[in-house]
Amino acid sequence: MSNLINYPNRKVKNIIAKKTSFANRGMTLEEDINLTNEYYISQNKALIYKKPTPVQIVNVDFKKRSSARITEAYFKTPSTTDYNGVYQGFYLDFDVKECSLISSFPIRQIHKHQIDHLKAVMAHGGIAFLIIRFTKTNESYLLLAKDILNYLSSSETKSLPKKWIEEKGYLLKINFNPRLDYLKAVDLIIQENNYA
Amino acid sequence: MSNLINYPNRKVKNIIAKKTSFANRGMTLEEDINLTNEYYISQNKALIYKKPTPVQIVNVDFKKRSSARITEAYFKTPSTTDYNGVYQGFYLDFDVKECSLISSFPIRQIHKHQIDHLKAVMAHGGIAFLIIRFTKTNESYLLLAKDILNYLSSSETKSLPKKWIEEKGYLLKINFNPRLDYLKAVDLIIQENNYA
Repeated sequence: MSNLINYPNRKVKNIIAKKTSFANRGMTLEEDINLTNEYYISQNKALIYKKPTPVQIVNVDFKKRSSARITEAYFKTPSTTDYNGVYQGFYLDFDVKECSLISSFPIRQIHKHQIDHLKAVMAHGGIAFLIIRFTKTNESYLLLAKDILNYLSSSETKSLPKKWIEEKGYLLKINFNPRLDYLKAVDLIIQENNYA
Repeated sequence: MSNLINYPNRKVKNIIAKKTSFANRGMTLEEDINLTNEYYISQNKALIYKKPTPVQIVNVDFKKRSSARITEAYFKTPSTTDYNGVYQGFYLDFDVKECSLISSFPIRQIHKHQIDHLKAVMAHGGIAFLIIRFTKTNESYLLLAKDILNYLSSSETKSLPKKWIEEKGYLLKINFNPRLDYLKAVDLIIQENNYA
């Protein structure tokens, strides 16, 4: 069971929360992206889903007729990113990360297997990126995996400076609907044919 | 909890089985496709994954330091198909179905939301299909969603005749590695530009 993991409590709470009241508090980046994707699907604009949380199921109780009940299971490390789908014939693949620092994003927040996955997406002609939110200032940026990988290969640093992110990234604005219209940035990326 | 479901026992056993001995028995279609996808990834040929089984988590025990333990959870109905990914810049999206009948495939084995999802994939420029295995004869066919939808719209029937599947589908051969080289059929489909 070497690939079982401990999620930080906040993440587990997000997974467990089925219906969350959005009143009187800010939404997480993940909630914003999920609402945005629902909007895109309802408008036939794109078909992008969050993958289910991978769970290792050990025991199931079939006694109750109404619904099989899982009585023992563990969280597994995802082998890919959380989001993928199709937009105008393009394959999109990305992850979202919140960052509580002000002037940089620590690379350790991206797992090694996620970096490898994003590289593979690029190699197969997909559009690979991260959406990073600086929670202190509530700014969200879309950053191409290509740019992140270039930066990491040319530098010894263990974090992406905010200044660099402002320069290379696409700033995403919070709206009512869609919450975070990241496909606008993807449109620019496709126009510039700049994704791989 | 209206979207919680009862899986047939066999499916749950497949989900639970982590390491399965393949000796002395045939593999399920799902096992064949999973092995094929692992092969494609290892050969940098394509990046296609099975999505995790969607689970509604109700209770988690954090007592043990080593790993959070899920103590109550339920299976949810998937809102999409089981497989998606990218191949040569194309978005692929499909499901796999085993059929124990000899002369036809019953449409009820495809859920309504899966049909809707495959339609949406086509509309967004992806390649949408099913892989159907007739278990009695161990024949597997790749069938484009486009062809299935055309057939259903022009007929009152509740099943796809085997004869029609033989005519419209791409017969997939079982090999050692990759087990079921369905990308060969996808190559033909791309050549014929025939997927939407």
